[in-house]
Amino acid sequence: MSDNTNAAVVPYEELQQKIKWDKDGLVAAIVQDAVSKEVVMLAYMNAESLKLSIESGETWFWSRSRSELWHKGATSGHTQPIRSIHYDCDADTLLVRVNQNGAACHTGRYSCFFNPIVEEAPAVEQDAQGDRFRMLNELEAIISKRYAERPEGAYTTYLFEKGLDKILKKFGEESIEVVIAAKNGDNDELRSETSDLLFHLMVLLRERGVSLDEVMAELGKRHNKPTTNKMNR
Amino acid sequence: MSDNTNAAVVPYEELQQKIKWDKDGLVAAIVQDAVSKEVVMLAYMNAESLKLSIESGETWFWSRSRSELWHKGATSGHTQPIRSIHYDCDADTLLVRVNQNGAACHTGRYSCFFNPIVEEAPAVEQDAQGDRFRMLNELEAIISKRYAERPEGAYTTYLFEKGLDKILKKFGEESIEVVIAAKNGDNDELRSETSDLLFHLMVLLRERGVSLDEVMAELGKRHNKPTTNKMNR
Repeated sequence: MSDNTNAAVVPYEELQQKIKWDKDGLVAAIVQDAVSKEVVMLAYMNAESLKLSIESGETWFWSRSRSELWHKGATSGHTQPIRSIHYDCDADTLLVRVNQNGAACHTGRYSCFFNPIVEEAPAVEQDAQGDRFRMLNELEAIISKRYAERPEGAYTTYLFEKGLDKILKKFGEESIEVVIAAKNGDNDELRSETSDLLFHLMVLLRERGVSLDEVMAELGKRHNKPTTNKMNR
Repeated sequence: MSDNTNAAVVPYEELQQKIKWDKDGLVAAIVQDAVSKEVVMLAYMNAESLKLSIESGETWFWSRSRSELWHKGATSGHTQPIRSIHYDCDADTLLVRVNQNGAACHTGRYSCFFNPIVEEAPAVEQDAQGDRFRMLNELEAIISKRYAERPEGAYTTYLFEKGLDKILKKFGEESIEVVIAAKNGDNDELRSETSDLLFHLMVLLRERGVSLDEVMAELGKRHNKPTTNKMNR
């Protein structure tokens, strides 16, 4: 694929048999940002566009309104380099994980799913349902949205526009502020600076295209190799 | 909703007009685990099942094969308490975020999307079972155990025995290593140094008696005060 060593694991001919195309020869394809894990859109593929997607490593769809093949991002530049494709248990839906470039929605929004029917209560303080780290999910979604949409005046936009060096300078500053807070023995300050640090770290990871899942997987690997890592020693 | 203070933000009658039901009166509904952010299934809703979903706070679908309403998990117990519902830009797809109970797939698998067409590079081993940040829980438990028990020869014991200054020196070192990794454009290195940073940050928080929940609450407070904080600006 475009920027990975991925390879098609199912030969295309076999795949064409396996997928249950609907009577218009289409299959629904859910597109998920592989970094933030946000679902950004749903579109349809015919056999030709699935083949093109696999071969090119970027998403191609069949436009039902225009009745034509459609290379996502060809005009906007908001392409979707593919990280993985799966089909579901009854082979009538695809899940395509991508490195989303810019906004996925034609409205300029990061995700097409911006209209709430039922809204989640915002996470404040500790979550009642035992989802301790729900705030990391939310923050990651906000940062990904800012990354894609670049709303004017937003601090996160400012960081992304300034680029890696600015993000690293802020990250470094917050690290030092954590150290100073700890030395001051002031836990309010420590909580506050730790929050700032985590926010800037997540901006940095987004800028570099590293997901929190990858970091968690790395922590897991270390934790499971007790003889060769620091954490279990 | 079932276990939140969520409320339907769009009156049902208006919604019924707004959604572009297909010629069978259905709309595709993507179901995403709100905790892990994994996409677990795609099913279809008619107006009746959407209404039931909103009213009951659990997912109801229209089974196309059995031509009947279907309360997900009614027999298996694998229900899907709803955290949010959104519709997309052209109102022909729903995104339903749920607290997935047990397996979403009728095969007993967590997600219906278990068949790879193109596989992700192995660097990313996603934690399929629910909790994205399970590793933070585990690591926090390990660190707390070391803090209490001080087992001889353990690296974490060494840090606690040396005390705050040593922990801060290591924390500072890892911060700088994150910066260097990012400047090197090496995401393997970045993942690795970010893991080390988080580990030492957690040791620091333990040493100072600050919990991750307090840090999450702090992040939540900022996120919900858009005019006075950096993150939403």
